Amino acid sequence: MSDHAVPFDRDAIRGIQRRLQFDVQTASIREVNAIVNAIERDLGVRFIRMEFGVPGLPASPIAIEAEMRALCDQQLAHVYAPFEGVPALKEEGARFWKLFTDLDLPPHSVVPTVGAMQACFASIALASLLKGPASTILCLDPGFPENKLQMRLFGARHESLDLYYYRGDALVRAIEARVRRGDVTAILWSSPNNPTWVVLNEAELAGIGRVCDRYDVFAIEDLAYFGMDTRRNYLVPGEPPFHPTVMRYTTRAITIVSSSKMFSYAGQRLALMFLSPSLSDLRVPALTARLGTDNVARGLIGGIVYPNIACAPESSQYGLLAMLKAANAGDQRLFEPARVYAARAKVMKRLFLEHGFHLVYDNDLGEPLADGFYFTIAYPGYENGADLMGELLHYGISAITLAAAGSCRREGLRACVSMTSEGQFDTLAIRLRRFHEDHPA
Amino acid sequence: MSDHAVPFDRDAIRGIQRRLQFDVQTASIREVNAIVNAIERDLGVRFIRMEFGVPGLPASPIAIEAEMRALCDQQLAHVYAPFEGVPALKEEGARFWKLFTDLDLPPHSVVPTVGAMQACFASIALASLLKGPASTILCLDPGFPENKLQMRLFGARHESLDLYYYRGDALVRAIEARVRRGDVTAILWSSPNNPTWVVLNEAELAGIGRVCDRYDVFAIEDLAYFGMDTRRNYLVPGEPPFHPTVMRYTTRAITIVSSSKMFSYAGQRLALMFLSPSLSDLRVPALTARLGTDNVARGLIGGIVYPNIACAPESSQYGLLAMLKAANAGDQRLFEPARVYAARAKVMKRLFLEHGFHLVYDNDLGEPLADGFYFTIAYPGYENGADLMGELLHYGISAITLAAAGSCRREGLRACVSMTSEGQFDTLAIRLRRFHEDHPA
Repeated sequence: MSDHAVPFDRDAIRGIQRRLQFDVQTASIREVNAIVNAIERDLGVRFIRMEFGVPGLPASPIAIEAEMRALCDQQLAHVYAPFEGVPALKEEGARFWKLFTDLDLPPHSVVPTVGAMQACFASIALASLLKGPASTILCLDPGFPENKLQMRLFGARHESLDLYYYRGDALVRAIEARVRRGDVTAILWSSPNNPTWVVLNEAELAGIGRVCDRYDVFAIEDLAYFGMDTRRNYLVPGEPPFHPTVMRYTTRAITIVSSSKMFSYAGQRLALMFLSPSLSDLRVPALTARLGTDNVARGLIGGIVYPNIACAPESSQYGLLAMLKAANAGDQRLFEPARVYAARAKVMKRLFLEHGFHLVYDNDLGEPLADGFYFTIAYPGYENGADLMGELLHYGISAITLAAAGSCRREGLRACVSMTSEGQFDTLAIRLRRFHEDHPA
Repeated sequence: MSDHAVPFDRDAIRGIQRRLQFDVQTASIREVNAIVNAIERDLGVRFIRMEFGVPGLPASPIAIEAEMRALCDQQLAHVYAPFEGVPALKEEGARFWKLFTDLDLPPHSVVPTVGAMQACFASIALASLLKGPASTILCLDPGFPENKLQMRLFGARHESLDLYYYRGDALVRAIEARVRRGDVTAILWSSPNNPTWVVLNEAELAGIGRVCDRYDVFAIEDLAYFGMDTRRNYLVPGEPPFHPTVMRYTTRAITIVSSSKMFSYAGQRLALMFLSPSLSDLRVPALTARLGTDNVARGLIGGIVYPNIACAPESSQYGLLAMLKAANAGDQRLFEPARVYAARAKVMKRLFLEHGFHLVYDNDLGEPLADGFYFTIAYPGYENGADLMGELLHYGISAITLAAAGSCRREGLRACVSMTSEGQFDTLAIRLRRFHEDHPA
């Protein structure tokens, strides 16, 4: 049924949209998901589903077996883990950091959280307290939309610099110009970037790090897609090239590494927060009223993460521990998801480009854009990404708008490769060809 | 070595205290824990450890097997659970609520969280937003100390009514007198109460519920010790007596049921938040700015819980689901921890009372206090619980002060039975007898 002819019955889709009160102009990712589910069910068709940024590959047996050992042999399910994390995981995390970034970190600067979501949440909570209520978090956009919900919850102001307009020296200059006004507490970004898959390079990270140290600003660096820029092989432990991170260039970094995408471990909710070692000594008096201490690291861990969740789930900590041990020992199977997604992206991006689409964010400072989890697309004649998304629904292809991720580019869509297997590439090609025929540029 | 003669070497203990900079007057629960660990190690002795409120019994094999099925057979580890919870768990939770409280609840009003800690965190965040920045949360104290850290983080004011002075009609009158001033957003308590193990009765709950409805105030009811008041058998599904809850008496309840203590499942971090059905329709315009909606239930789930953790850990949701299914089917093995702790408390409390101690909170409105996870103790001649705690350290018995839990009773200690097995009762008796001999009243 995946070869069902496109476009689908327009009347039927209109009917489903009416029934679900679906408005393409305002649809959230969940609403896109719901309308696609309904169309698949009602019409007996199957979409090329590119709307959700979720892992599409099973977790490693290394993690599953370690979890089962923790539950059965170690009988840990009834025990609270230490609130600052299982010591062995903190140590292995510090070793991981050293082996893959060549940076030294004491184990107490490695903190397990309930996914990168909670790590971002805690970092943003901290940032909202650093300089009083009128302070601002500077976002390098587009970005992870949920970060904006987190800022809203904490009443943190935010401003945006769009990576479409600012890269390289211009990015650093724009950041410094804004930070110089004194009210910025933190700079927040993801790299490889959700949704554009551009990657900040060493010069940009060095520039941002310099600004952070100079103006007492925190870098909140979301490496949710650690190691998934496959243009270079960052994944041989202890060997250069080492993974880029702003922590190389500033004493004020909070770097977040998720296990959800890199290790396909999203359901078990485990990420690591890496704190610049100096945060263990840094004191910010403004924190005391809300965190009970002026010590930044202690306030973040004991005043935010701990009263938020008590501790990260116990068996998952052992699952991640086992994967880090294997990765640190050079077991390359752990990094297989990154390679699979890259291979998919290479083909799928080409198919879109062959059929009249172009990339929206295509500037990676002279390098070809990496192949990975996401890419961004637009089509001639569509100035509004929502219209393009709505039209693609008739061709059995789903995506979300870039506007939903805070991009200034209204014409664009984010496409995620994770749910599309190799066996669906022919269907994708057929549908894109028909779309292109029906919409001559 | 558990029979090592008491009191221990006073010089040695003084030395350890100096080395750890231990101040009995200001010691946190973690510092008490650390000093006891050090004394045990250095002196080769074993304490009767009553300082930590952690489960001491292994989790049910029903949960462990269900988790393993989720991980191995269902291959769920790489999948994000729905952010509002696994549907089957929400349904089984609603069934649990009906069978054990006789109250109807739609599944969408049941929300899994990362332990009761996150559920309290989210409820307090909500309460802090309901009536603007000058509003107050009214705590029935003593209580779970971490709730105060949560209020501090959100900048929520709180005031306290102490259950030592206020019970029954007097409690309800005192609550109403305070709430009438208009700035209270929520009333927060735990019952059975940590640390006193007093239990609010139906008349008190009815009174509090009436006040909540009358003054638009939320009840945040922490049932972390659900079913663990063993004076009545609340644990036969579908049969009276039904478990007490304020939700029977108000349309504005958020009731939190932890799996940590009742089911000894603390490490896997799973609790359920039960929301009064009317919260799905209730609108509070003040919420929109921070939660993106004025709808209370949607704001709590989509504006707080979701951007905090994305979703609760997947395999643990299946573990709790299996336990609820068994409990709902009448499998009494699930509730065994409550009975074990009650049996321990019965003996241990008697031993303390036989050797000159008395209970601090002993008023359960004419009923004998239930036997359960905690009880409260004081000793003649000790006006300061910290001094009593410091002296008991020499007798191999550890506890924490009631002051640390927000109690007005400075003389008292909280004693938790969970880590003391039956085989240690003789040692406890010997130590208490010696303490009593050395400290004639």
